[in-house]
Amino acid sequence: MDDFRTQFPPAEFMAWFTAFTPLTAETVPLAQARGRVVAEPLTSREALPRCPRSLMDGYAVRAADTLACSGAEAVLTVAGEVATGTSGQAHTLRPGQAIRIWTGGELPQAADAVVRAEHTRALDRDIVAVLRPVAPHENVVQAGEDYTPGAIILQAGHRLRPQDLGMLAGLGIASAQVYRQPRVAIVSTGNELVAPDQTPPPGAIRNINSTTLTALVEEAGGLALPRGICPDNFDLLLTRCTEALREADLLLLTGGSSLGRHDCTRQVFAAVAGSEILVPGVSVRLGKPAILARQGNKALFGLPGHAASALVGFLRFVRPLIRLYSGLEATLGLPTIRAIIGRPIPSTPGREEYVRVRLTPQPGGAPPLAVPVSGKSGLLGPLVQAHGLLPIGPDAEELPEGAEVTVLLFP
Amino acid sequence: MDDFRTQFPPAEFMAWFTAFTPLTAETVPLAQARGRVVAEPLTSREALPRCPRSLMDGYAVRAADTLACSGAEAVLTVAGEVATGTSGQAHTLRPGQAIRIWTGGELPQAADAVVRAEHTRALDRDIVAVLRPVAPHENVVQAGEDYTPGAIILQAGHRLRPQDLGMLAGLGIASAQVYRQPRVAIVSTGNELVAPDQTPPPGAIRNINSTTLTALVEEAGGLALPRGICPDNFDLLLTRCTEALREADLLLLTGGSSLGRHDCTRQVFAAVAGSEILVPGVSVRLGKPAILARQGNKALFGLPGHAASALVGFLRFVRPLIRLYSGLEATLGLPTIRAIIGRPIPSTPGREEYVRVRLTPQPGGAPPLAVPVSGKSGLLGPLVQAHGLLPIGPDAEELPEGAEVTVLLFP
Repeated sequence: MDDFRTQFPPAEFMAWFTAFTPLTAETVPLAQARGRVVAEPLTSREALPRCPRSLMDGYAVRAADTLACSGAEAVLTVAGEVATGTSGQAHTLRPGQAIRIWTGGELPQAADAVVRAEHTRALDRDIVAVLRPVAPHENVVQAGEDYTPGAIILQAGHRLRPQDLGMLAGLGIASAQVYRQPRVAIVSTGNELVAPDQTPPPGAIRNINSTTLTALVEEAGGLALPRGICPDNFDLLLTRCTEALREADLLLLTGGSSLGRHDCTRQVFAAVAGSEILVPGVSVRLGKPAILARQGNKALFGLPGHAASALVGFLRFVRPLIRLYSGLEATLGLPTIRAIIGRPIPSTPGREEYVRVRLTPQPGGAPPLAVPVSGKSGLLGPLVQAHGLLPIGPDAEELPEGAEVTVLLFP
Repeated sequence: MDDFRTQFPPAEFMAWFTAFTPLTAETVPLAQARGRVVAEPLTSREALPRCPRSLMDGYAVRAADTLACSGAEAVLTVAGEVATGTSGQAHTLRPGQAIRIWTGGELPQAADAVVRAEHTRALDRDIVAVLRPVAPHENVVQAGEDYTPGAIILQAGHRLRPQDLGMLAGLGIASAQVYRQPRVAIVSTGNELVAPDQTPPPGAIRNINSTTLTALVEEAGGLALPRGICPDNFDLLLTRCTEALREADLLLLTGGSSLGRHDCTRQVFAAVAGSEILVPGVSVRLGKPAILARQGNKALFGLPGHAASALVGFLRFVRPLIRLYSGLEATLGLPTIRAIIGRPIPSTPGREEYVRVRLTPQPGGAPPLAVPVSGKSGLLGPLVQAHGLLPIGPDAEELPEGAEVTVLLFP
């Protein structure tokens, strides 16, 4: 099943993702399967329902016996009741008889329809008048009408939602084969960084990206492996990356926003045993530079150090790959909303852009107004004030006030 | 911060929710705070950044010294370097001097701007030519420009997203006061029900709703307390509900889709000590009957037993209340998508309706086609095939083919 939340297929970047395939499958119990993606088609081992069942409270009948009431009422003898949870097939309905039945109840043998209680009138304790005729199968679910034995109930690639899990429970299926969750190692580089629980000495700042990216990975369905801070040192970085890749399917290295660091990240990725640089950088604002390398089916991402750029780089490039590893399409997969541009937004032609916007509700059910909150990329405030990102294509020069646009909402 | 994903404020039902208030607050570490809602405004204890910082790789300068290069190049003496992570304020810039600096680096004393490396040319090892003048504060973030000490950084009611957590980490804030997660007890009623791991005897079926609702509660941010199956017996149900409400903030009782059971649920809710029936039923399709009662600030919901009706009833009525308890607005809070009606959809005027629809992508970025998959309400297949719900207002008679609509996507 496709994910329809995304209207921005990142076509150009996706070409680089052909180097990667979904992860291996594993079996998980239903209670842990929400949001996971089916790796092998799931088939029903039994018919659902197993016997014909009533959809209404009323009387199980032979439909032919009710035809009389197209002119007058059809009068039937009440021959018993299928108490809820008891076997209906233990009863056999004879011509001229009706049997009391409840919603979900199993039909008696020879019964082929149910008359709703509202369309009957009790004439005596054991005699009921049917006010409207019913057709064969009316108000009845047939055996196997939902699923026949051996029917495919969920295809590979289907993301398991609450109702899918309920359906599997109803069929007695206790676990599912799903794609493994990507393990994502997160390394922050920078001599200036200290852990969030420390007071930074002069010239230092606390590590922000590790916290943000851990939460982003978890939201995207991955397992985050935060691997702390590494100084700007080629040998230390190479060791840290190599170790992280033993456990991880995907490595995020943040901090390459200055030119020297960008080069360093590229050199470290190139030096990782068995690795290959796929993309040395991307022309996008915010979010560049993003370096992509691979080691077999494992991906290495170099993300900028600025909090806003790292966030946009993750959503634009990393999240689709986490989705691909998880068995989904490699799309952004973010919820979207239509909005009206509240103030002209200039853009630099020739490069894709993601503008942080704040949304203001409008009266009368009109789309909200989107106003840019882009500040200096080193500031955190604009990122916290923004509700989402407005993608601007490389050909756009300016988005005029009043234009209707689609905004990607932050997860 | 409002949630903009919802375009369908359930105005009529929300009136009944004024009886309920958000739950109490608790302190949680950042690593567990994603998706939780801030209960007390969060303030910064320090300035961010603490000192002026460079936004670029280049040279820290006195802006006035660069004015010369509006005509010719300004030639400055390179007096040192602020190595990443070291104190910039330990340096003092004299007139005519420049100091090498990197992105994020702390500015030397007396420096008020940064010239980007791309706008300079090295004339000698210690002499640099500036090719473009800079204004004061250019390429610099001022101390406290992001947050000043005591500034409110997040208001109560804000749902914590990854970037919010990163920002708190950057300010050295290790935990947040957030609203408690609602504990939601789930009881399935019906003599016909057996647990999913059992083979149903004749007339019986496996319990589906407990699995579906558990996953729905967790997706909505609640803590699910599945409390199994209870037979259709007033005394047993009363005991089960009373016990569940000792632990839970919200009780879901499913199985009241037949008239007798609906009455039974109402009677049980009315008999719970300290309870009061607020709404005895709702006119909506699917999803009725939904009974709402309260015991103090605790809510009791009676939901239909049919899988599709229970799902719609949950999304339409229960999910907004879970959001209210969690500190959010009592809206549906579901992602939406614009779609085109692929086939006329009839509707019964006078009652709000939720039609299960399947979406088919269209070429060229056009909105997907929405086609109803509504089958008999007892079937599970249509629910699994559907991507979302199309809400139809009580005044609509038919939605014509080609009409543009908004579809609520299943979570």
